[in-house]
Amino acid sequence: MGLRTAVLGASGYAGGELIRIIDDHPSFEVAHLGAHSKAGVDLASVHPNLTGGDRRLLPNEEVPDVDLAFLALPHGASWEIGDALAQRGIKVVDLGSDYRLDTDARYRFAYGSPHPLPDRLTDWVYGLPELFRDAVATANLVASPGCYPTSALLALAPLLSAGLIRPEGIVVDSLSGVTGAGRKATEGLMFTAVDQSVAAYAIGSHRHRPEIEMALTQATGTSPSVSFTPHLVPMQRGLLSTCSAPLSDGVDLADLQAALDGAYRDEPFVDAIDRAPQTRWVVGSNRALVHGAIDVHAGRAIVVAVLDNLVKGAAGQAVQAANLMFGLDETAGLAMTGWMP
Amino acid sequence: MGLRTAVLGASGYAGGELIRIIDDHPSFEVAHLGAHSKAGVDLASVHPNLTGGDRRLLPNEEVPDVDLAFLALPHGASWEIGDALAQRGIKVVDLGSDYRLDTDARYRFAYGSPHPLPDRLTDWVYGLPELFRDAVATANLVASPGCYPTSALLALAPLLSAGLIRPEGIVVDSLSGVTGAGRKATEGLMFTAVDQSVAAYAIGSHRHRPEIEMALTQATGTSPSVSFTPHLVPMQRGLLSTCSAPLSDGVDLADLQAALDGAYRDEPFVDAIDRAPQTRWVVGSNRALVHGAIDVHAGRAIVVAVLDNLVKGAAGQAVQAANLMFGLDETAGLAMTGWMP
Amino acid sequence: MGLRTAVLGASGYAGGELIRIIDDHPSFEVAHLGAHSKAGVDLASVHPNLTGGDRRLLPNEEVPDVDLAFLALPHGASWEIGDALAQRGIKVVDLGSDYRLDTDARYRFAYGSPHPLPDRLTDWVYGLPELFRDAVATANLVASPGCYPTSALLALAPLLSAGLIRPEGIVVDSLSGVTGAGRKATEGLMFTAVDQSVAAYAIGSHRHRPEIEMALTQATGTSPSVSFTPHLVPMQRGLLSTCSAPLSDGVDLADLQAALDGAYRDEPFVDAIDRAPQTRWVVGSNRALVHGAIDVHAGRAIVVAVLDNLVKGAAGQAVQAANLMFGLDETAGLAMTGWMP
Amino acid sequence: MGLRTAVLGASGYAGGELIRIIDDHPSFEVAHLGAHSKAGVDLASVHPNLTGGDRRLLPNEEVPDVDLAFLALPHGASWEIGDALAQRGIKVVDLGSDYRLDTDARYRFAYGSPHPLPDRLTDWVYGLPELFRDAVATANLVASPGCYPTSALLALAPLLSAGLIRPEGIVVDSLSGVTGAGRKATEGLMFTAVDQSVAAYAIGSHRHRPEIEMALTQATGTSPSVSFTPHLVPMQRGLLSTCSAPLSDGVDLADLQAALDGAYRDEPFVDAIDRAPQTRWVVGSNRALVHGAIDVHAGRAIVVAVLDNLVKGAAGQAVQAANLMFGLDETAGLAMTGWMP
Repeated sequence: MGLRTAVLGASGYAGGELIRIIDDHPSFEVAHLGAHSKAGVDLASVHPNLTGGDRRLLPNEEVPDVDLAFLALPHGASWEIGDALAQRGIKVVDLGSDYRLDTDARYRFAYGSPHPLPDRLTDWVYGLPELFRDAVATANLVASPGCYPTSALLALAPLLSAGLIRPEGIVVDSLSGVTGAGRKATEGLMFTAVDQSVAAYAIGSHRHRPEIEMALTQATGTSPSVSFTPHLVPMQRGLLSTCSAPLSDGVDLADLQAALDGAYRDEPFVDAIDRAPQTRWVVGSNRALVHGAIDVHAGRAIVVAVLDNLVKGAAGQAVQAANLMFGLDETAGLAMTGWMP
Repeated sequence: MGLRTAVLGASGYAGGELIRIIDDHPSFEVAHLGAHSKAGVDLASVHPNLTGGDRRLLPNEEVPDVDLAFLALPHGASWEIGDALAQRGIKVVDLGSDYRLDTDARYRFAYGSPHPLPDRLTDWVYGLPELFRDAVATANLVASPGCYPTSALLALAPLLSAGLIRPEGIVVDSLSGVTGAGRKATEGLMFTAVDQSVAAYAIGSHRHRPEIEMALTQATGTSPSVSFTPHLVPMQRGLLSTCSAPLSDGVDLADLQAALDGAYRDEPFVDAIDRAPQTRWVVGSNRALVHGAIDVHAGRAIVVAVLDNLVKGAAGQAVQAANLMFGLDETAGLAMTGWMP
Repeated sequence: MGLRTAVLGASGYAGGELIRIIDDHPSFEVAHLGAHSKAGVDLASVHPNLTGGDRRLLPNEEVPDVDLAFLALPHGASWEIGDALAQRGIKVVDLGSDYRLDTDARYRFAYGSPHPLPDRLTDWVYGLPELFRDAVATANLVASPGCYPTSALLALAPLLSAGLIRPEGIVVDSLSGVTGAGRKATEGLMFTAVDQSVAAYAIGSHRHRPEIEMALTQATGTSPSVSFTPHLVPMQRGLLSTCSAPLSDGVDLADLQAALDGAYRDEPFVDAIDRAPQTRWVVGSNRALVHGAIDVHAGRAIVVAVLDNLVKGAAGQAVQAANLMFGLDETAGLAMTGWMP
Repeated sequence: MGLRTAVLGASGYAGGELIRIIDDHPSFEVAHLGAHSKAGVDLASVHPNLTGGDRRLLPNEEVPDVDLAFLALPHGASWEIGDALAQRGIKVVDLGSDYRLDTDARYRFAYGSPHPLPDRLTDWVYGLPELFRDAVATANLVASPGCYPTSALLALAPLLSAGLIRPEGIVVDSLSGVTGAGRKATEGLMFTAVDQSVAAYAIGSHRHRPEIEMALTQATGTSPSVSFTPHLVPMQRGLLSTCSAPLSDGVDLADLQAALDGAYRDEPFVDAIDRAPQTRWVVGSNRALVHGAIDVHAGRAIVVAVLDNLVKGAAGQAVQAANLMFGLDETAGLAMTGWMP
């Protein structure tokens, strides 16, 4: 008999991935499918890829007694229900951003308004297992990282920790597939608007930047300044971050690679590799790949990280954290093998 | 009666674009279509989009007496024939890279070997009209810029010239459509290899970096250090560069925008705009768009430039230079209107 | 001084193409840009590819005195304004479907309700120049064909006229790019819904079938039965129809090709070719290509036709008709050269 | 301890899918990875999505003693090795076409030359479990169906068996993603050649037509004539067939749907559904969906079938057959859940 989970926001792309993963998970089972505007409709009508019998979406609010709730809700929609579930003693993994930042000040900087429950912020653990495994394993409430931060943190944390790069002048340029923008129908996300085109957006102001800086500070004890620019590219899934930073004096490629290799040698889901990765190598899996290089002429380290924004960048990472929270094998139910081509 | 031109490398993508543009040009006409392995085949079999009667590709070498030759050849294939045409008194616009760098030292740095005709390098003018219009207008031999450098130069030169950014710590991350990789059939450029995926390549070592630095130095009198990383994205055409640099003290967004507006107010093909551009806005046209923003937190200027890699990044820019070389209207035959969607 | 035209529905994809074409047309000029929900906004904000100065969208209804109005409106939105413009003595080319069918009975069959102005139906000429050139040339009111019918009619009419195929058992399976579905933001047309997938829709009931049968009857004097199934494929532009019909007794490939060659030898925009065409060969141009083959084993003719749904299938064809209506060169302002790749 | 399998043609797309499936299969394991030109290279270099330790491709010919060999080889490459493995007493599932046709006459019709081992043809069972389950379950040698035939057979066989459609005048128009064309680098399969375009190919002459007709005859006892036209569409995976046939007298939609529902109610991998399916609903899974409709006006049944060409159309179907051959649960190791979006 599996651990009972609720998936809120089940009609979205991250929600669909959660269901796909949990349906095959050896220890979890889906006990509640919550939705907002899609409440009342059949699961198969919103996720025709999912089989497993007739299942219906119910209102997000009507969570039964479960062991764990996954929240895959838009920004601003999880703080209240997340806190209510916590009060009921239900463990929560929030895939959204409401509880990711550790202080009200940082939240105000990112979102321009105070956090509605600032006293609760420290109740939540930032759920990147590769950097904060012990905290995740003992947490009841986990704020799962954003897709962009996951890639940037995996690329940069080992180098900052080892002092191989300087914390000033870090540049992260990221490319994301369109599923990263969610499922809501808008003009800007139509096929005719997105296909055959790329664009940068939220230049100098994306909300994931404070998250990147916070987690780097927590993990490495440095105070980095990161300039982050996301780009939308015409593909369904996949995320690539090209992370660049000034090298510390005397650092060479061997130092860089040794730091990345050392950091990920024993990690089940992250590999440091010696050639430039493509996003499609990991799409469908919970793997991330990092590749370190040096621009000798410019004196900069360049680390490229790739992952599937809906798996390691969302649903897979959330299940990875949940596995730790329940003392399960960290890899339970999570694919190592990607879909290709 | 038009000015007679030869198009060498007519079977490639840039060659096809040259023919498309020249066929509609009021003053130029195509008098010779040169090819290498495709010599002897019908034009329509390699470019089925081109109409205009039965035309056949001939060997690249058999250039008749023409007024102008466009060379759209792979790297290393234009230095010899370009020089031979120059000796015959034929004006040449080389879309390739053989004559873009101004010194043998720079060439060795970029390509790892000496230039075969180092004494000729100074005979060629670097053909970016927006930065070197007068030189182009009086040149007989023009080395037309690469697609990546065009975007980076348009983004950065006005800021460097005005002292708004510092020359150290410049980062250029570029995204290119697949036509930028040429037409040769390789495993890595198959639909199944490229679609639904992105990747960085030539990290820290791309040949366009020395070209960017050279032209910035020539145009602005500074000695910038540029870290350049290109990325391949799954679209046919379009190129976007996100160019980032540390701000000089006291510079604000108004300064940045004023510099870009001033630089391009009278330019027919470049517009400074106040929203983040998409590549598809300019695909099919010879236009480039630049958009300046500031990352206040990180103290960096971020300028995004977009263009069509085959037009403003190749064939259109070459015709723009040719227009200047023959005293024609700089915009003759060049589309201002893009193809969308 | 050009002939003054109004473009209603200027914010849509066909509207944008009309503007793009008319802006470069030697005899027409845009005197009014009409829109519905986008009235009041700048043209550049809805069609960033279009240059040509500051232009603003106005309400569709406020058409000034012009020589010609193009209606690029949704189904049901052009009958009233089309009739009002006709009453004012303005020539009209309606790209929509309101006036394409010749009888109220056919309209009821296609749309399930009576035509609001059935007496007006005969005032409008079905605007496929290749089949009805003389009627178009003398018309004041033209109903421009749909994209699917254009392809099917060009493929089938010559064979039916020559008696080479039988009128029963005709099957037309068509593939269309996503721009054919319009610009309105819906869940089903998002990149995430459309990319990497194909589907058939409106099986057995698409509104274009009666239009195909009507025009075939008018052009060939036969009464064909056509089973038509459209498919949506993940590309921006382009339409392909595979049209199949039982061969009449004794017909061979030479007969088939002779009929197609003969029909299109003198047509400026249609070519009969001897290899299977790709849609990208004609995207951006007003060309259509037809290719005839025979399935000997099954005893069927198979004709494949390709065109750009927004050009020969919409805006280009409308301008072609308008050229005829004003006694201009039929090819004026219309590209023969496609965009590739 | 699993049953030991060999995968020949391991470097191709179907080979990669076989490995992906077998690696997660509860009863099979990969004991030999065979390749031709890629023999000697690491598996990860040709399939970077596959994890599971260092594995190397060996020559196809060096098959050790295994329980089962999967042949994922080009046409013409499996008859000899397939026969040799059979002589060694190894069970074989051939994903290729060498042993699919049941007579030399049919082979000559399809391929234009005699079969090299015509006496062996009857040793092989055509491996579509939904039509020939018992034969597959007792076979030692299985010729797994092609991707196009699988879709057409699932759509048409129940209707022909029930006499709901007439065997003359059947038209199958199919759309396939690009992985269906294999992995070999050719000009026609480059991203720049395939993206943003569709085309029909092998019109009237595709080799899968005789296979469709043979299997329909075997399964239904009729002698249908099928006109088959495949189309290449710009997506990685997925196959859709629109199958159309004249209705028998008096047949209505309820008859059609009852036949499809009855045929697939107990099938684990095929569902008859009441809305038009998209290919992406089943990509990544071994499911096929069929949807029956009627074109009342034209008197034709139209059945649309979708599947993943690399799974139910290749590797998944082969494993499904292998499960039957070894008396395993038919669904063992085969995903029911697709990848979306």
